[in-house]
Amino acid sequence: MSKTLTTREENYSEWYNELVVKADLADHSAVKGCMVIKPYGYAIWEKMQQALDKMFKDTGHVNAYFPLFIPKSFFSKEANHVEGFAKECAVVTHYRLKNGENGEGIIVDETAKLEEELIVRPTSETIIWNTYKGWIQSYRDLPLLINQWANVVRWEMRTRLFLRTTEFLWQEGHTAHETSQEAIAETEKMLEVYATFVEQWMAVPVVKGIKTANERFAGAIETYCIEALMQDGKALQAGTSHFLGQNFAKAFDVKFTNKEGKLDHVWATSWGVSTRLMGALVMSHSDDKGLVLPPKLAPFQVVIVPIYKGDEQLKQITEVVLKMKKAMEAKGISVKYDDRDNQRPGWKFAEYELKGVPVRMAIGARDLENGTVEVARRDTLEKETLQQADVENKMEHLLLQIQDNLYQKALTMRDSKTYVADTYDEFKRMLEETPGFILAHWDGTPETEQKIKEETKATIRCIPLNNKKENGSCIYSGKPSTQRVLFARAY
Amino acid sequence: MSKTLTTREENYSEWYNELVVKADLADHSAVKGCMVIKPYGYAIWEKMQQALDKMFKDTGHVNAYFPLFIPKSFFSKEANHVEGFAKECAVVTHYRLKNGENGEGIIVDETAKLEEELIVRPTSETIIWNTYKGWIQSYRDLPLLINQWANVVRWEMRTRLFLRTTEFLWQEGHTAHETSQEAIAETEKMLEVYATFVEQWMAVPVVKGIKTANERFAGAIETYCIEALMQDGKALQAGTSHFLGQNFAKAFDVKFTNKEGKLDHVWATSWGVSTRLMGALVMSHSDDKGLVLPPKLAPFQVVIVPIYKGDEQLKQITEVVLKMKKAMEAKGISVKYDDRDNQRPGWKFAEYELKGVPVRMAIGARDLENGTVEVARRDTLEKETLQQADVENKMEHLLLQIQDNLYQKALTMRDSKTYVADTYDEFKRMLEETPGFILAHWDGTPETEQKIKEETKATIRCIPLNNKKENGSCIYSGKPSTQRVLFARAY
Repeated sequence: MSKTLTTREENYSEWYNELVVKADLADHSAVKGCMVIKPYGYAIWEKMQQALDKMFKDTGHVNAYFPLFIPKSFFSKEANHVEGFAKECAVVTHYRLKNGENGEGIIVDETAKLEEELIVRPTSETIIWNTYKGWIQSYRDLPLLINQWANVVRWEMRTRLFLRTTEFLWQEGHTAHETSQEAIAETEKMLEVYATFVEQWMAVPVVKGIKTANERFAGAIETYCIEALMQDGKALQAGTSHFLGQNFAKAFDVKFTNKEGKLDHVWATSWGVSTRLMGALVMSHSDDKGLVLPPKLAPFQVVIVPIYKGDEQLKQITEVVLKMKKAMEAKGISVKYDDRDNQRPGWKFAEYELKGVPVRMAIGARDLENGTVEVARRDTLEKETLQQADVENKMEHLLLQIQDNLYQKALTMRDSKTYVADTYDEFKRMLEETPGFILAHWDGTPETEQKIKEETKATIRCIPLNNKKENGSCIYSGKPSTQRVLFARAY
Repeated sequence: MSKTLTTREENYSEWYNELVVKADLADHSAVKGCMVIKPYGYAIWEKMQQALDKMFKDTGHVNAYFPLFIPKSFFSKEANHVEGFAKECAVVTHYRLKNGENGEGIIVDETAKLEEELIVRPTSETIIWNTYKGWIQSYRDLPLLINQWANVVRWEMRTRLFLRTTEFLWQEGHTAHETSQEAIAETEKMLEVYATFVEQWMAVPVVKGIKTANERFAGAIETYCIEALMQDGKALQAGTSHFLGQNFAKAFDVKFTNKEGKLDHVWATSWGVSTRLMGALVMSHSDDKGLVLPPKLAPFQVVIVPIYKGDEQLKQITEVVLKMKKAMEAKGISVKYDDRDNQRPGWKFAEYELKGVPVRMAIGARDLENGTVEVARRDTLEKETLQQADVENKMEHLLLQIQDNLYQKALTMRDSKTYVADTYDEFKRMLEETPGFILAHWDGTPETEQKIKEETKATIRCIPLNNKKENGSCIYSGKPSTQRVLFARAY
C-alpha cells in the first residue's frame, strides 16, 4: 500500500480516511460500520483513557460496570429519551443457533426467542437508573459519582472511522445528587474536566457552551458541550455533559429521604466522551505528510533511527543511543529505537512522519565523530543538530514546546476561521467560501434553527458560556435577539 | 440489609452468593444472567487488569480492539469452533425499533431485518483471524502479539455472579507466529504469566496442566490451563492458553511468505482470563465474617477508624492520623481514613471486615496519650498495639506478610485436600466425603472420562505439566495407565 496521502487541499475527507488507515490507527472490519482499532491507534486511546480516568478519580468518581443489554421496555420509560435513542439500535431477539438441517450451516434456532427483546446499549441511563433505585434510599447514599468505560452501539447508516461508527468505545458518567444545584455544579465541573483534557492533552482549543433545545440530549434539561473546529472549517462536538433534572429518577422511581426526612426524587447528570476524540485529534493537527501527535498522547514521543554501514558502526551507534535512551526514559520520556535492518533510514523517516512521532532523532557516522545527533520536530519539520550530551536536558523542554506549539497553531487556525455574520446572505456565503465558526444573531426559536439547518446544513453548535450580550436581529427571521450564537457545519 | 453471612459450614454456595452482594462486589441486574459490577468490586478488577496488562506488555504484547459483533457465517469456518461456540449466543437480527401503532410502546421494526444475523462475540478468534488476513503477508509481519480487553456474551442458563454470567469482562490474547514451536512457546509463556499473576497477586496456588481432548477449547490443538482449588474442595479453572495450530489460519486463509520464500499458513495461539477470577479470589481466602483480600489487589490496604468523643478529640486524632496516612502513602500504601460521624466504630469495624480490608487501624483517646495505635490484621484477625512512630516502617512489611500468609494458607488448604485414589470406590467416596483434587489413573480415553463425569460429576481438570510417570491401572476401566491425572468436581 502506498504511504502517500491525498492532500487536504485536494480532498480533506479523503485525506482523513486515508490517514487513519495508513497511519495504522484503525481499519474497517467485516461488520458494516464497525471498526478495528489497531494497536497504534489503541495506544493513543489508552493514553486518553489514563488521563481522563485520573481526572475523574481526582474529582471523586469511581468506576463500575453495567450490562451491555437493556430490556426494550426500559427505553419507553422516559418520554424524550425513547424518541432519541430507541430507534437505530442493535436488537437481540434470539439466544441460540443450531445446525441447519439442509447443510446450510448454522441458523437461528427459532425456539430460542426472547420474551422481551434486548437492546445493545446506545447509552446507559435507563439500565443505570433502574439499578440506582436499589442503591439509593437516603441522602447518606448521595452523591453517587460513577463512571463506566464501555462499548456502545448506535446503528449508523453512514459511518466514518472514529467519527461515526456503529460500535464505539466511550466513558459515560452517571451521577445522582440531593439537589438541583449540586447536579448542575457537577454537570459544569465535568464540562471543565473535558475542556481541560481536550485543550491540555489533545492540544485542541474548544468553545464551551450550551446546546439549543434541538440539539439537546434526549432526556436532558440542559446539555453542555465543548466544540472544536477542524482544519476544513467544520465543527466537531468533542464532549457533552448533561443536567438530567429529575427525569430519569421519575421514570425509574428513584427517591431518597432528604435531610428534613422528606421523600424526593434524585437529581441526575450524565456525561461522555468517546473514540470520536481520536477523529478530532487526527483532524486538528495532522498535515499532508501524515499524523501530528501532541507529545502527551503519543505512544512514543521520540524515535531514534541509526544511519550506518556495517555491524561495527551499528554497534557503536547503538551504544550511544542506548545511553541517551536510558537518560530520556529516566525523565519519563518514551523512546523507541528502530534498529531494524530490513528498512532503510529514508523509509523509516517517512514512516514516523506518517505516524506523527513528535521528535525523530537520527545518528550516523559523522555524528559519532562529533558527539552530535540530528533532531527533527514533527510539528514544524525543523531540524537541528544537538550535542549528544545535551539531549537529556533539552528533550523534556522540546516536547513541552511542541505540545504548546500545536495548541497555539490550532488556536490561531480556529480564530482565523471564526467569523461574524450580520445577514443571512453573508452567512450563506461564508459557509461556502470561508467555512468555520460563524457568530450570528438568532431569534431563539427551534423553528428558525431548523429552517437554517435545512437550507444550509449549518447548526447552532452552542450558545457559548459567558456569552457577551448584544442586541441585534436574527439573520433569518429579523426578529430581535440578545446575543450571537455559534453556527457551523459539523461532523 | 443484614450484614451477617450464612456460614461456609452451613451452606458454602449461599455464603458465596451473599458475600459477593453484601461486600458490594457485584449485584444482579434487570437482565437475566448479566451482572452489575459495583465500584468496590470493579476497583479490584481494575487492579487485576493493571497487573496483567503490565505483564502482557512486558512480554511484548500490545492492545487493540475488534468488533463486538461477528457475522454468523464466520463461526462455520472452523469445524470444531462452531460446535463449541456457535450455540448459546446472543443473536442480533434487527437494527431498528419503532413506535407501535396500538400504543403498546416501542416494537421491533420488521422491515429492518439484517441480511445476515450478527452474533455478540462469545470469543473473538473468528473476527480477529479474518482481520489478520489483511495484516499478514510476510514473516516480517510476524509475530503479531495482540491482546484485547473486552466484554463477551455466552448465553448461560444457570448463572452465578462472577463465576458464570451471560456477559463477562475478560482479556483475550491472539497471536500469530511463523512456526509451530514459536506458537507453542508463546502458549506456554502466557500460561506462566497467568500462573504468576494468580499466585503472586491473588495469592492463590495453581496447578499448571494440559486439558484432555474432552475439555479442550473448541478449535485448539492443545489447551493449557491453571486450576485452583476452592475452600469447599471444588476446582476452578482460572485461566487457559491455547495452541491453535494452523486451524484458524486455514479457516480464514491467512498465509505468509516465510524466510525461504514459500507460502505457509500462520501458527496461532489464544489465551484469556476473565472476571471469573473475581470469584476465585473471593472463594479462596474469605471467611464467615466476609471478604479477605490480598494486599496487592485490595482497593485500599489500610483503613483507619477514629474512636472519639467530641470534636476536639476528633481533631487531635485526625492530626495524628493524617501524618501516619501521608507517611504510608509515600511508601505506596493506599490508606482510607473513615471519619464519618454517622456510623459508630463497631459498625465500621464490621463493615471493613466484610469488605476484606487487609489492615484496620483504630486510634482513640488513650492511644493519643500513649502515642500508640491498634493494628488489626484481616487475615488472622490478630490485633497488636504499635507505636505511631513505628507504623510507617512496619506497615509495608506487614502487608507483605499478609500477602504471603494468604498464599501459604491457601496452599496448605489445597495440599490437605489433594488425595490419591486407587480404586473407583475410593474415588467416589472421596468426592462425597472429602472433596478436593484427586490424583488417579485413567486409561486415556474420552469415553472413560465421559463415563466418570456422568456418574460422579467429576472431570479431569488437567494432566499436570511435568507429571510424574507412574504405571498403574485406570480406576474406571482397569486398563493400563502411565500417569495419574487430576480429577475434581469443578465450578
